[in-house]
Amino acid sequence: MAQQARAIKTRQAILQSAAAVFAERGYERTTIGEILVRAGVTKGALYFHFASKEDLALGVLDAQMLDVPLAPQEIRLQELADQAFLLAHRLQRDPLVQASVALALDSGATSIDRVAPFQAWIDQLSEILMVSKARGELLPHVDVTDTASLFSGAYSGVQAMSQILCDRTDLLHRVSVLLQHFMPSICTPALLTGLRLTEEYARVLGAEYEANRRRRDELSAVETQG
Amino acid sequence: MAQQARAIKTRQAILQSAAAVFAERGYERTTIGEILVRAGVTKGALYFHFASKEDLALGVLDAQMLDVPLAPQEIRLQELADQAFLLAHRLQRDPLVQASVALALDSGATSIDRVAPFQAWIDQLSEILMVSKARGELLPHVDVTDTASLFSGAYSGVQAMSQILCDRTDLLHRVSVLLQHFMPSICTPALLTGLRLTEEYARVLGAEYEANRRRRDELSAVETQG
Repeated sequence: MAQQARAIKTRQAILQSAAAVFAERGYERTTIGEILVRAGVTKGALYFHFASKEDLALGVLDAQMLDVPLAPQEIRLQELADQAFLLAHRLQRDPLVQASVALALDSGATSIDRVAPFQAWIDQLSEILMVSKARGELLPHVDVTDTASLFSGAYSGVQAMSQILCDRTDLLHRVSVLLQHFMPSICTPALLTGLRLTEEYARVLGAEYEANRRRRDELSAVETQG
Repeated sequence: MAQQARAIKTRQAILQSAAAVFAERGYERTTIGEILVRAGVTKGALYFHFASKEDLALGVLDAQMLDVPLAPQEIRLQELADQAFLLAHRLQRDPLVQASVALALDSGATSIDRVAPFQAWIDQLSEILMVSKARGELLPHVDVTDTASLFSGAYSGVQAMSQILCDRTDLLHRVSVLLQHFMPSICTPALLTGLRLTEEYARVLGAEYEANRRRRDELSAVETQG
């Protein structure tokens, strides 16, 4: 178990270095050698975790996905808002998540599969919307795939604009505005008032997420020592 | 007048070449020399129109803006939809418009002002929304700046996703879905049914735009000969 925890740490350090070099040099120009130097690991250690530069890119792209499970909500549609707010929280803080989103939108990175991260997010949102629909939370005309794709695309543009205009300092506000414009078109009116779509709620959610992550890291530290 | 028309043509040809080289090489790596070769013009001709590489980038970024005035609509909010549909039409066809949007989203292009094109679009949408609000078309709670920023950001993400997933073949559908999710949250219910937000309408609008452009080009050709 101790060994496994150390391996996870090494993998994470390599990913962070890869993300930093991709962000500085652009994906296409980056070499494995540059990532090795930045990460300070051996070639063997890197190739133990990642088969190729493309594999590293997939690892970075994967960092968009939430690393701590979300608390289930009574109104399932709230979980779509929670996902959006937590990604915003992480985009404001975590360089790996920032690099992940930049890589997905980098039109110069022609040799990697940029469809996968969008599709993964569309699938995750579709799943929430399908449960939500089955529980009668959605207006009858809602097309789950169209709505999930729209939300995923709109979100990626909103965060890119927030980055360009103010380095994402207003991202929670912009995501809140997105949700407030979006929910009335898909949610039944009776449930709409039960949704929490404010910046204040987003801040509480972010603090809970950090607390959960700290607990998980402490647990993993104990296991490493044991 | 003939000379002026020729100058406009040369300027356009230089911009198209610059856009193509930016798209292939990335903005930062592109040199003026490469643009000269591609455009087949003299250094003097290029510098007559553009002072620097940055000036060329601003010209490319500017190509997002509509080149033929939109027909005024009885419901002013329709003009926001018309802008969105026409940009989608042009993004599907015009390499200069494609390059313009790619440049605005290129996080590697650190030496150019990427705020300006977003701000220009936000301003243009804000103007439509302010008139719309003054005429009582909007719901009372609508914050014009928030809504204009949201729409501009969401649109840029939706088109980026459509490009990545299917080379923008489904862009009219996606923009129609965006408008249909967005309008009910800002438009008074009585006017909502009067808005045209379908793909079919977008196609008619695109055909009208092409006809207007042809008329303008024929007129300019006559002037060049005269």
